[in-house]
Amino acid sequence: MRTAGPAGIAGTIGRQGSPSPLDAQEAAGILERTRASVDPELRRAVESLTGSMRRIARYHFGWEHADGTPATGNAGKAIRPALVLAAASALGGSQSVAVSAAAAVELVHNFTLLHDDVMDRDATRRHRPTAWAVFGDAGAILAGDALQALAQRLLAEDPHPASSAAAARLAACVIELCAGQHADTAMEKRSPEEVTLDEVLAMAEAKTGALLGCACALGGLYAGASEEGVEALDAFGREAGLAFQLIDDVIGIWGDPRRTGKPAGADLMARKKSLPVVAALASGTPAAAELAELYGLPYEAGELERTVLAVERAGGRDWAQSQAADRMSRAMHELSRAVPDPEAAGGLLALAEFVTRRSN
Amino acid sequence: MRTAGPAGIAGTIGRQGSPSPLDAQEAAGILERTRASVDPELRRAVESLTGSMRRIARYHFGWEHADGTPATGNAGKAIRPALVLAAASALGGSQSVAVSAAAAVELVHNFTLLHDDVMDRDATRRHRPTAWAVFGDAGAILAGDALQALAQRLLAEDPHPASSAAAARLAACVIELCAGQHADTAMEKRSPEEVTLDEVLAMAEAKTGALLGCACALGGLYAGASEEGVEALDAFGREAGLAFQLIDDVIGIWGDPRRTGKPAGADLMARKKSLPVVAALASGTPAAAELAELYGLPYEAGELERTVLAVERAGGRDWAQSQAADRMSRAMHELSRAVPDPEAAGGLLALAEFVTRRSN
Repeated sequence: MRTAGPAGIAGTIGRQGSPSPLDAQEAAGILERTRASVDPELRRAVESLTGSMRRIARYHFGWEHADGTPATGNAGKAIRPALVLAAASALGGSQSVAVSAAAAVELVHNFTLLHDDVMDRDATRRHRPTAWAVFGDAGAILAGDALQALAQRLLAEDPHPASSAAAARLAACVIELCAGQHADTAMEKRSPEEVTLDEVLAMAEAKTGALLGCACALGGLYAGASEEGVEALDAFGREAGLAFQLIDDVIGIWGDPRRTGKPAGADLMARKKSLPVVAALASGTPAAAELAELYGLPYEAGELERTVLAVERAGGRDWAQSQAADRMSRAMHELSRAVPDPEAAGGLLALAEFVTRRSN
Repeated sequence: MRTAGPAGIAGTIGRQGSPSPLDAQEAAGILERTRASVDPELRRAVESLTGSMRRIARYHFGWEHADGTPATGNAGKAIRPALVLAAASALGGSQSVAVSAAAAVELVHNFTLLHDDVMDRDATRRHRPTAWAVFGDAGAILAGDALQALAQRLLAEDPHPASSAAAARLAACVIELCAGQHADTAMEKRSPEEVTLDEVLAMAEAKTGALLGCACALGGLYAGASEEGVEALDAFGREAGLAFQLIDDVIGIWGDPRRTGKPAGADLMARKKSLPVVAALASGTPAAAELAELYGLPYEAGELERTVLAVERAGGRDWAQSQAADRMSRAMHELSRAVPDPEAAGGLLALAEFVTRRSN
């Protein structure tokens, strides 16, 4: 029997919390088994590309170096495909029939990474130069376009009776991801005082929650879940995704760059309106005023510690952590609606806890 | 009975040729009827977007001005959707069931225009500033991504038994379009002597022929055509598309900017390796040497006339026009395989002649 309920998760999300070794092990096992079953499908799909599109995709997935020689690869943790398979399992379906759907979701995720890096001018991902930094903007944009097409091709060629509904849902999700990313880039151009917490939360739900929700929903569709079940799975993934984003933003400020692959404080230096920052700015505290002053001007060397402290003193970190706990609590509620049997829900629960415990 | 065979087409493609008023009228009628049946579906799809994605898409299609006020619109001639419907008709199918597929092809076409304009830094399309020039690169990239997703969503939600096969084929076509566009951008960075005619022809087939072929193939699929019939329709569209691109390149150098919406000679000023230019460079004539010298340096004011004349004297224009006639002849051969009854093939033939007669 699982004992981790909302209260337990809220308790372990704090900075002193440590993951239960058993849960962490379970999630690691699920992710490893997911990669073992989905990677061959993913590689087959990418290998069906030709020429430069294939080369850029191989590089992006970490399977090749920039010069085209093979690399040992670090294609990411495969959280989204794991959610597809775990959701299919939880609803009593077979994981093996949902492998194409899992690969399709991972292709969509990577298409958005390729495009987001171009728009955000991010030069590093997974400890390596981003695709646009190596192959140019056109290469990264087109390889992203090709991966979106590849995702839809996998579903269109999948004879499973749920594949059309899954394709429609994945396409609708892509549209939501685009709107979320555009809200994000538009937000960067506005002054910090103009941006509300509701806006950044809605943006984070579209940018991050939507695809995690879609992954769970696709697993449900492949397992023949009811419409209500599919919607509850989607809501579970969305809420867990929002918790994930909150924790990710916390890591972006207070995390260990050796573990995240990103320089600590980069978001603050770029004056990014991340969730803890917007919460801090909205706090009405003296620290909020200090932070607003700092954010009103471009970053200057040596200011990082002061900025981090201002966000912390204005309550940005505490807000983000309690908000993450709240989102996880909603996620658990949706999960119990979609999968009443706690035993069957175990895989999805372990994955949700895994993503929100990355800071530990 | 139609009389226009390959010889007739080859004869009318020359610069002195004028379109048969009847054929031109027929094509204009087909395009008008296509817009009347496909536009509502296209608008419904675009209206399903929200916020900034919808606004950018409406602007791109010419339905709105940059400030959001309604525009009378110039969303293009709808050649690709017309090919879908005409192919369905030619194979004895109903046009009305293929309307979603026609709209999907038009959405894909417009997604590639949005992205190509970003990559090529083209600031004008259809006599208006391009979407990236108005809404920024991120807006145009994301609106393009959303239109690709919308195209696949239309097919995934279409209950027609051919919709999955159509979705798979359209996705494969997008992948080919991406490879073609990347070959094009990569080509621009190479010196003119390094680029072969075979390469530019292959690039033009991927960039332009593939989607026209796919449009015809989708019409065939929706009409229940045999596998051979679908492939012949695809080949027909590809060859006609290549003829179209050849003529388009000719217009880009010798056409009337008031009709094309692009400044005359812009391709030459940008040192674009268009088909007539590469043919001219490969001709081994004194004019080729002059052209190579001009192309070896950035464009300088006043050089346009000399450059145009060099391409012409080196045979670039004649080659492009006879190559276009040759491609149209192959297109006719494929069409007769796919649709043996000339009466039934009339619509497709009129459309193919229309696109290759734009210079007149």
